[in-house]
Amino acid sequence: MKKLSEPVVAVVGGTGVVGGEMLSILEEKNFPFKEVKVLASAHSAGEIYEFADQEIVVEELDKDSFEGVDLALFATSASLSEQYAPIAVEAGAIVIDNSSCFRMDPAITLVVPEVNFDAIKSEHQIIANPNCSTIQLMPVLKAIHEKAGLKRVVVSTYQAVSGAGKAAMEELWEQVRSILSQQEVSKEVFSSQIAFNCIPHIDVFTEDSYTKEEVKVINESRKILNLPDLAITCTAVRVPVFNSHAESVNIETKDPLNAEECIELLDNTAGVKIARDSMQYPMQIDVSGSDDVYVGRVRNDRSVENGLNLWVVADNLRKGAALNAIQIAEKLLG
Amino acid sequence: MKKLSEPVVAVVGGTGVVGGEMLSILEEKNFPFKEVKVLASAHSAGEIYEFADQEIVVEELDKDSFEGVDLALFATSASLSEQYAPIAVEAGAIVIDNSSCFRMDPAITLVVPEVNFDAIKSEHQIIANPNCSTIQLMPVLKAIHEKAGLKRVVVSTYQAVSGAGKAAMEELWEQVRSILSQQEVSKEVFSSQIAFNCIPHIDVFTEDSYTKEEVKVINESRKILNLPDLAITCTAVRVPVFNSHAESVNIETKDPLNAEECIELLDNTAGVKIARDSMQYPMQIDVSGSDDVYVGRVRNDRSVENGLNLWVVADNLRKGAALNAIQIAEKLLG
Repeated sequence: MKKLSEPVVAVVGGTGVVGGEMLSILEEKNFPFKEVKVLASAHSAGEIYEFADQEIVVEELDKDSFEGVDLALFATSASLSEQYAPIAVEAGAIVIDNSSCFRMDPAITLVVPEVNFDAIKSEHQIIANPNCSTIQLMPVLKAIHEKAGLKRVVVSTYQAVSGAGKAAMEELWEQVRSILSQQEVSKEVFSSQIAFNCIPHIDVFTEDSYTKEEVKVINESRKILNLPDLAITCTAVRVPVFNSHAESVNIETKDPLNAEECIELLDNTAGVKIARDSMQYPMQIDVSGSDDVYVGRVRNDRSVENGLNLWVVADNLRKGAALNAIQIAEKLLG
Repeated sequence: MKKLSEPVVAVVGGTGVVGGEMLSILEEKNFPFKEVKVLASAHSAGEIYEFADQEIVVEELDKDSFEGVDLALFATSASLSEQYAPIAVEAGAIVIDNSSCFRMDPAITLVVPEVNFDAIKSEHQIIANPNCSTIQLMPVLKAIHEKAGLKRVVVSTYQAVSGAGKAAMEELWEQVRSILSQQEVSKEVFSSQIAFNCIPHIDVFTEDSYTKEEVKVINESRKILNLPDLAITCTAVRVPVFNSHAESVNIETKDPLNAEECIELLDNTAGVKIARDSMQYPMQIDVSGSDDVYVGRVRNDRSVENGLNLWVVADNLRKGAALNAIQIAEKLLG
């Protein structure tokens, strides 16, 4: 694998909500770079992006954009990633892609750095960043699996609108404003009103009635944990929260692991912050802007042998997307 | 049991959100009554309540309030029910109590009419109305249990603020208004900001780290279904929705019951409306004001033998509280 020391970095889709977060995190972390390029659609080209005391002019993404680029962080749709990631690789860049495009490709690694960074091999030119709702589960499930063996996992999500992008966040604002002023609610991003409502439908439906979001949680978890037969199911729900995803997670382990032991374990797990006091719990508004995965409400589930209930919250734009991608890049640097 | 034909009805706590809903439903349903009394605290006494072309003067609840009352519908706190329900019984009334006060008392029946009306015996003077988050589960779990035997149930709730009363609904409005106008958010009803946030904490914490709301779902379900050892667990979460509770329900049955069969079964279950199209699903804003329990997203859960995922939604003030109480009263009349 190409050695990244002081790379030329391109943030592709840098004007979107995840791309913007990538740029903020690069700046916050003093990520060592030679140059940072912001690539976006023609619509945004020419805009000025303030970055680390520089003014970066947004460039239009095209087939020549990756000349001289060492590290391309893609925060684009799956179809744009499919089109441009190979071009970036051809130009000599390592690609870290946040879309779903390559995630389940057997030739491509899907990485949460704390969990399976070692799966990256020197020949890998594209590394896939998992889906937000998967990422936050991974450090928790990995730690529990290593300690007691996962038998079965049941996940119900409470997902923020930021996962659907800037326009979705604006739609929630607009709908709330309309309702407060007793005007008609309009919708474009979501199929139903999201203000003061929960929608059990994220991404499209698949053949067996699961949504693609739910299938992602199932399949990506199996791949990252290297447990192809992991018994896991998911119900994914959009809630009227701007940012951060929460998950109600029910876990059965093979060997005994009680709540107290689980709290102790997670307190010593990299990337995880645990509420040790059983009456404290992480919440979406508090966790937004934070880097870790927050866990609370750890309880023994007496309805099954070796059962646990947990409440898992993380910033879906940071740990669930941009931060995870940059943590991968940092490890490649190191 | 006293025969109720054209009873004198007292709605205790009639100025609260559930009491108000009881009065609306009595009116909607043309419930046969001789007289309706509205009892409330001294604070509301003297107010005029418009009811079925009458003007009812709200009376202060005291020990003499139940003279001549045949049917007392209590929509009060557990402590007020504890104090006044025995007085109402002493005065000769049948009490239907919506508080948690008597629910787990072995001498008192806890009733969802479609599920266990037959548990009411002639000597019962107080009948308990279950908790909102329990009620909507019952017709669904009962039908599935009779068909295939319940092995285990895992519930994660998405509960509306109306379950915490009028002041809670106002608090959500106020917090949203404050946030839109960039003012500080104040909180009184909820321990944390509920606007644009989910709070995994309803009612107080119990010794084993479950909240009382979660314990209610577990214990009340066992009692109503007459399955004292039912394996069931719950995570109860408040969401920024005004009305109607949703629940993500994972079920294991003893005998095989696939999604298709489950849909067929629930389509023929009293009090349940099922989304037959797998891409349709009930939502809280749509279900508010409706009487039935709505089920959608019925899927085979391949993570376990005989597994199912369901999404269950109902109006927590109506089926989850006021309506269920009045359905009990109607059956007593009949």
